[in-house]
Amino acid sequence: MVESTDFFMQRLLIGLDVGGTKTAALLADVNGKALAETAVPTYTTTPEALLSTITRAVRAVLAEVRATPRQIECIGMGVPGLVDPATGIVQLAVNLNLQRYPLGPAVSARFKTPTFLENDVRTAAVGAFAYVQQMEPVQSLAYVSIGTGVAAGVILNGRLHRGHNGMAGEIGHMIVEPGGERCNCGQHGCLETIVSGPASVRQLIAAAPEMQTTVRNAGDVYEAAVQGNAAAQAIVQRVGQHLSRAIQWLVMMYDVEKIVIGGGVTRSGDPFMAPIRHELAQLRQHSPLATALLGEEKVHLMPPDYNPGLWGAVRLAVNGNR
Amino acid sequence: MVESTDFFMQRLLIGLDVGGTKTAALLADVNGKALAETAVPTYTTTPEALLSTITRAVRAVLAEVRATPRQIECIGMGVPGLVDPATGIVQLAVNLNLQRYPLGPAVSARFKTPTFLENDVRTAAVGAFAYVQQMEPVQSLAYVSIGTGVAAGVILNGRLHRGHNGMAGEIGHMIVEPGGERCNCGQHGCLETIVSGPASVRQLIAAAPEMQTTVRNAGDVYEAAVQGNAAAQAIVQRVGQHLSRAIQWLVMMYDVEKIVIGGGVTRSGDPFMAPIRHELAQLRQHSPLATALLGEEKVHLMPPDYNPGLWGAVRLAVNGNR
Repeated sequence: MVESTDFFMQRLLIGLDVGGTKTAALLADVNGKALAETAVPTYTTTPEALLSTITRAVRAVLAEVRATPRQIECIGMGVPGLVDPATGIVQLAVNLNLQRYPLGPAVSARFKTPTFLENDVRTAAVGAFAYVQQMEPVQSLAYVSIGTGVAAGVILNGRLHRGHNGMAGEIGHMIVEPGGERCNCGQHGCLETIVSGPASVRQLIAAAPEMQTTVRNAGDVYEAAVQGNAAAQAIVQRVGQHLSRAIQWLVMMYDVEKIVIGGGVTRSGDPFMAPIRHELAQLRQHSPLATALLGEEKVHLMPPDYNPGLWGAVRLAVNGNR
Repeated sequence: MVESTDFFMQRLLIGLDVGGTKTAALLADVNGKALAETAVPTYTTTPEALLSTITRAVRAVLAEVRATPRQIECIGMGVPGLVDPATGIVQLAVNLNLQRYPLGPAVSARFKTPTFLENDVRTAAVGAFAYVQQMEPVQSLAYVSIGTGVAAGVILNGRLHRGHNGMAGEIGHMIVEPGGERCNCGQHGCLETIVSGPASVRQLIAAAPEMQTTVRNAGDVYEAAVQGNAAAQAIVQRVGQHLSRAIQWLVMMYDVEKIVIGGGVTRSGDPFMAPIRHELAQLRQHSPLATALLGEEKVHLMPPDYNPGLWGAVRLAVNGNR
């Protein structure tokens, strides 16, 4: 690989998706072109261990193109928890073992560069927004993340809507089955207790205890459904019904232009989306309102080769705290 | 009544709440002080008849203080339907018998004054926002109107959130009982089919057909519940459960600072609010999340002596289309 001296002067952007298990990094030039991507295991024993994780991820992507930390123009980070983007303080991130920790300033100090952070789902919403805008000039969308947790990031007038307490889009804690399963939040029957990845697994094991050793994640549940397992099919259908309703609610509440769905559970692709599309088609069949607001082009599944969390983090680096 | 010549020079604002049955008008000075209020029956046979209705209402409030149309600085109007505030066009207002009619420009022409119009629930949300701001400096709220229809007007960052199609806040059409009663919108089991005024009446008459002649509106249902009628009590409780959940959803989705409830059905006061407050207290009991986001001070009932629709219309006159 031959590089001109110019390359060593090039300004670079780094997007980080800091997760409880792994931390991914994307290196891009200032025009947003991807140069390198990597992922390292996340260490969460102490804030210092987390900082080392981030440092390792940053050095790894820089090393891929033989760049130096001095070339970094800006860093954007998505963090799973309640964060304050204005100060860079992580108020609470259980999976990162952080509480009231100034992660933004700490990373800034380490690389001597501006750092912007945001909640991970909102960061992914920014990435989803950039993705959709490549196709059409929308101004609003809701990005629904279905994984271990369930939440939405909402873009209105081209900007993130965070809410008064930074809790806007917490659709995983909308109560959908009063008196239902107890949620970590203390409420009963939250959407998350039905449609999250772990919830699908729990439901299948409860219905078919003999599958305890073979079903480890939502992908296994969808796979079992495809293979014809009746219990898995019932769960997949139930999840689809609840998610199509959550989509209907998001649209009636926010009247956003697009709904984009992503997150680990959605990687099953068609088996995941088919029940949702079926329910929405049923709604449209008898309702002019649903036809107008929930058309076929309304809901997009994030393609598996586009990582909205990483691209959103790069956008944070480009836009700063706007 | 002795008036100085100055009075005849005073600039005046008019707020109008144009309803399917009656049209109310509020006259205020430019500082927002109320000077006169009136209501006239609404005629909807033709757009011209509606314009005459509006003219009568305006003349009536002006006459009360012996002012002339030339003193009108600006008119604000709330209209029950889908409107385009930027152009003043009413896209569809079934109860006013209007479709694609430039009501704003028509009223402007008649009184030779700027006229701003907005959907009636959003207008009331603006009025509710002004009301709450007298007490505390909030920047966001959702105003939930429970009457013949059910909808919310949402204020974010001090401004109305209208949505891409002007349909934001249509919570009456959130599906809460899949396969439930058919709604006017064509969907089944919309919130409106359970908690609206007519829905309460229908449910009580279905449960107690002998009450058909005595129960005419939601007030009668709440009155019957207070008097100990078991069927009415069950309906009141069901409405409270659904509304408390709708409030929980609004808060999880939007993370607004306040929820304000108003509209005809809420005039029963305590019997209306008690089941909602009870449900929310139950939620708080076991959930730190609900305690943080749904505290006792979160939900306000609009006092019966404050008309948010009229005051919101006056605010539209003050602020224009902002």
